Amino acid sequence: MTDVDLSRFSINQETVKQWSLPELVEGCRKAGVARIGLWRAPVQEYGVERAARLVREAGLTVTSLCRGGFLTATGPGERAAALDDNRAAIDEAAALATGTLVLVSGGLPAGDRDPHGARERIADALAELAPYARERGVRLAIEPLHPMFASDRCVVSTLGQALDLAERFPVEEVGVVVDAYHIWWDDTVEARIRQAGAAGPDGGRIAAFQVADWVTPLPAGVLLGRGQLGDGCVDMRRLRELVDAAGYAGRPIEVEIFNEGLWARDGSEVLTEVMERYAAHVL
Amino acid sequence: MTDVDLSRFSINQETVKQWSLPELVEGCRKAGVARIGLWRAPVQEYGVERAARLVREAGLTVTSLCRGGFLTATGPGERAAALDDNRAAIDEAAALATGTLVLVSGGLPAGDRDPHGARERIADALAELAPYARERGVRLAIEPLHPMFASDRCVVSTLGQALDLAERFPVEEVGVVVDAYHIWWDDTVEARIRQAGAAGPDGGRIAAFQVADWVTPLPAGVLLGRGQLGDGCVDMRRLRELVDAAGYAGRPIEVEIFNEGLWARDGSEVLTEVMERYAAHVL
Repeated sequence: MTDVDLSRFSINQETVKQWSLPELVEGCRKAGVARIGLWRAPVQEYGVERAARLVREAGLTVTSLCRGGFLTATGPGERAAALDDNRAAIDEAAALATGTLVLVSGGLPAGDRDPHGARERIADALAELAPYARERGVRLAIEPLHPMFASDRCVVSTLGQALDLAERFPVEEVGVVVDAYHIWWDDTVEARIRQAGAAGPDGGRIAAFQVADWVTPLPAGVLLGRGQLGDGCVDMRRLRELVDAAGYAGRPIEVEIFNEGLWARDGSEVLTEVMERYAAHVL
Repeated sequence: MTDVDLSRFSINQETVKQWSLPELVEGCRKAGVARIGLWRAPVQEYGVERAARLVREAGLTVTSLCRGGFLTATGPGERAAALDDNRAAIDEAAALATGTLVLVSGGLPAGDRDPHGARERIADALAELAPYARERGVRLAIEPLHPMFASDRCVVSTLGQALDLAERFPVEEVGVVVDAYHIWWDDTVEARIRQAGAAGPDGGRIAAFQVADWVTPLPAGVLLGRGQLGDGCVDMRRLRELVDAAGYAGRPIEVEIFNEGLWARDGSEVLTEVMERYAAHVL
């Protein structure tokens, strides 16, 4: 246990990827952490119902499930498969009793040079998925990813682009993720966070707020380049204050860091360090 | 010689970095290329006046000099040194008879988490440098770099941010660079290119148009990840049409690719391939 205020703190499973799901649950119990963000692959591996029971019996709240998405395919077969997979992701989110399914929307198919067209295909897919999700108490949360992922993971690169998509749907059906790592460089985020918050109570369209720090040099492939909180140049406190001012105050703050250095260490030690850094740089 | 229309084609020196300056000049003569973009370090190594004479006597036009910038230092000593260095860069541009000095504006100093403040320091520096440049027939050209470079190279990440800075100065003094590699993912560029073009004749604030393709996976450090034209997902023709519609028609198109694979090959072979790809994917 720690004297850090953990009332909003959520640890994303990938931050302590060295832990199995039972180890994560036990580590959270020891550390006094009541909220976790989960990923589909380790949940499926453990068994969805079994995972749901494990976290429920431990009294943990699942703040989000990562990830649905990859909705940019052009071929009808691939598109149908992606929709099926997203319905499965929605079912899994519902089973885990989280109201938030994070979407990594998908990059450009091979040979495609039209990000705008790809975003329109995402909108079409959302129209099919959003009612299905709503019926199950799940909101789809579009996560803008840093533009360095635009071609291969997510053509939604800015909060502005995410809101352009989300605003075509009721606020209860489609929200956005504000992840400090992806959007810190963008001088339009202040206005876009206000816009997202104005859509409704409790932060409006802001479905999740995630933090990781930006450090360089980036590693090959860039995916695992996220830094421990405080090690980089992101003013996470300012972003937290912006989402709070937009109505998100009191809601979960999820720490999601993909970093091989952290994964190589003892999970409890990493979790403790993350909580200390969270107090120093986010709260 | 080739049957590709080279009337706007410019080869940036870094694309064929395996060539010395005399080899570049000779390679351009053989290929019928009349325009080159130069970098300060190889020019200084060869000697600025000597380089200027070499390209002048070969009948080559220098479309741009890379690079000034790195104007975000907070300490007075570092700031003064940066301004001195930029005045030297302006002198070198004037000696090479190019009207365009490309600025890579600088990243965040260690410990700094305020990109907005850093951009304001850039504006202050531009106010000192722009009149000096204008007197020498040189326009400062702010290049927005991809947001993956925001922390360590350039806090100016979008054409919008570049224009926010440039528009504080007369169009003759400060322009912007439209580099397809850096801005292809941004859905606001169409409006921003129009805005840049509306500032005056001949493309207004568009001081240069550069092309390279976006390919993944990115290498460690990400700097040398640019792809040969046509190998990636950037619709360079659309961007060329946008700058042309904004008044830039007829002005230089500079191919600037940093790619170790290209550097390992024969320079003439690379230049020929670049020209063919340029015809196929840009014109």
